[in-house]
Amino acid sequence: MSERALPLHAQVERSLRDRLGSRDLRPGDLFPSEAALQQEFDVSRSVVRQALASLESEGLIHKVRGRGSVVAEHREVHRDVLRSGLRLESDGGGEVSTRVDAYDVVPRPDHLASITGEQVLQLGRVRSVGGVVLSYIRTWLPVDVAEAIGETDLEDASLHQLLADRLGRHVVGGHNQVRAVPATAALAERLGVPVGAPLLLLEGRSVDRDGAALEEFSTWHRGDLAAFDVEAVPPSARDGDGRLERLARTARELLAEIETLR
Amino acid sequence: MSERALPLHAQVERSLRDRLGSRDLRPGDLFPSEAALQQEFDVSRSVVRQALASLESEGLIHKVRGRGSVVAEHREVHRDVLRSGLRLESDGGGEVSTRVDAYDVVPRPDHLASITGEQVLQLGRVRSVGGVVLSYIRTWLPVDVAEAIGETDLEDASLHQLLADRLGRHVVGGHNQVRAVPATAALAERLGVPVGAPLLLLEGRSVDRDGAALEEFSTWHRGDLAAFDVEAVPPSARDGDGRLERLARTARELLAEIETLR
Repeated sequence: MSERALPLHAQVERSLRDRLGSRDLRPGDLFPSEAALQQEFDVSRSVVRQALASLESEGLIHKVRGRGSVVAEHREVHRDVLRSGLRLESDGGGEVSTRVDAYDVVPRPDHLASITGEQVLQLGRVRSVGGVVLSYIRTWLPVDVAEAIGETDLEDASLHQLLADRLGRHVVGGHNQVRAVPATAALAERLGVPVGAPLLLLEGRSVDRDGAALEEFSTWHRGDLAAFDVEAVPPSARDGDGRLERLARTARELLAEIETLR
Repeated sequence: MSERALPLHAQVERSLRDRLGSRDLRPGDLFPSEAALQQEFDVSRSVVRQALASLESEGLIHKVRGRGSVVAEHREVHRDVLRSGLRLESDGGGEVSTRVDAYDVVPRPDHLASITGEQVLQLGRVRSVGGVVLSYIRTWLPVDVAEAIGETDLEDASLHQLLADRLGRHVVGGHNQVRAVPATAALAERLGVPVGAPLLLLEGRSVDRDGAALEEFSTWHRGDLAAFDVEAVPPSARDGDGRLERLARTARELLAEIETLR
């Protein structure tokens, strides 16, 4: 159905829903007034009111006495990409569950840079938080991992915990890339979103303490449910509260003291 | 137009384009063979060949003698979110340009957590790399910044450089969030993408050396052109190549040496 065929209030509603979805308007922000929306869309006040009532009934905005409408807080799952690269942190404390969707030994895809061998173990897992599907995880592992970790072991389990417990290999970090991509039909079905919906894709590889590759992965997260937290700090500031600076001062004082003793 | 109304080869082509766009198939990967695609889509070889010819003519895949088709490398702009939170790094070394789209003193939006005052300076800037529009940057600053930095100062300039040069305030880091969101009509027009296209949104606030807030921003990047790099490392590994360990050893040796001199 083309935009033109929609009733006016539905057109206004869709446009406002877009602005909320894109975070052009953010939680906590005052929503534009009825008068401002009337002017922006060149429609009657009753059309604006119909659109607002729809958004309000879905909990996207709410009325605040004396202020008008305010953009509602939005439940989403945050993931600290920097510190762990791994751990899901649910705002609401929802339980994390994992379903294994694929467990196959396949010819090694050429894009895998860190895993060698003719074949690799490829996993497909659907991860949910609080009963809602959040992400689809595709993981590639050296093929001999299949001897230590079976398909059923992975149900509702942490792959990294299994790698540590069964193989004594500990994930300590890795190189990740983040992209916004459209959902294919297959991803849309797994994640319960429309085809083409924005997904937050985390691609990466994990290494152990010795820098040896443990896994590569692509994790597609529902864009409407997931946010990644990234603390940006320059190298010089990474020691927290200037402890390196204090150590340097101590070292300089020590050298000066040694000079006086010579 | 519904999917059913498209000719078969165009349906296959769209589906394959989705798989490339979503990075279900990644640059360097062997593309599925003609025989595999015939089977997957239940179509004739000539339909598959038409679809592949289309993708090849656009440079999305290319034939490799004796191997079949391979997913082509894709030009994109990488941004190191962790280290700078700021700097664009173009793969191709394309020149970065900035056009000021909005420069307004507005009532402070309620979501701004770090900037105080009744009013703020709100900027809208379009950033291009190598002549291609990459992102739309909305920035909020304390209103008095307007006295030091005018609209024309910001054309093809770095805001952070201006904050350093004119106000002696240096951005050293901040807290960022990354999301995948759909393009609104307004963003789609600015970025030259269809409405609803996936955008990679970086939201954040920047602080100076004293931890004082300098700005808040939302930057919407074209999902098909941008990737963020994030190095995930545990706190204990952040000193690079064990330099802190080496310093500690030097300190212990120094103390031992001092003991012998007593």
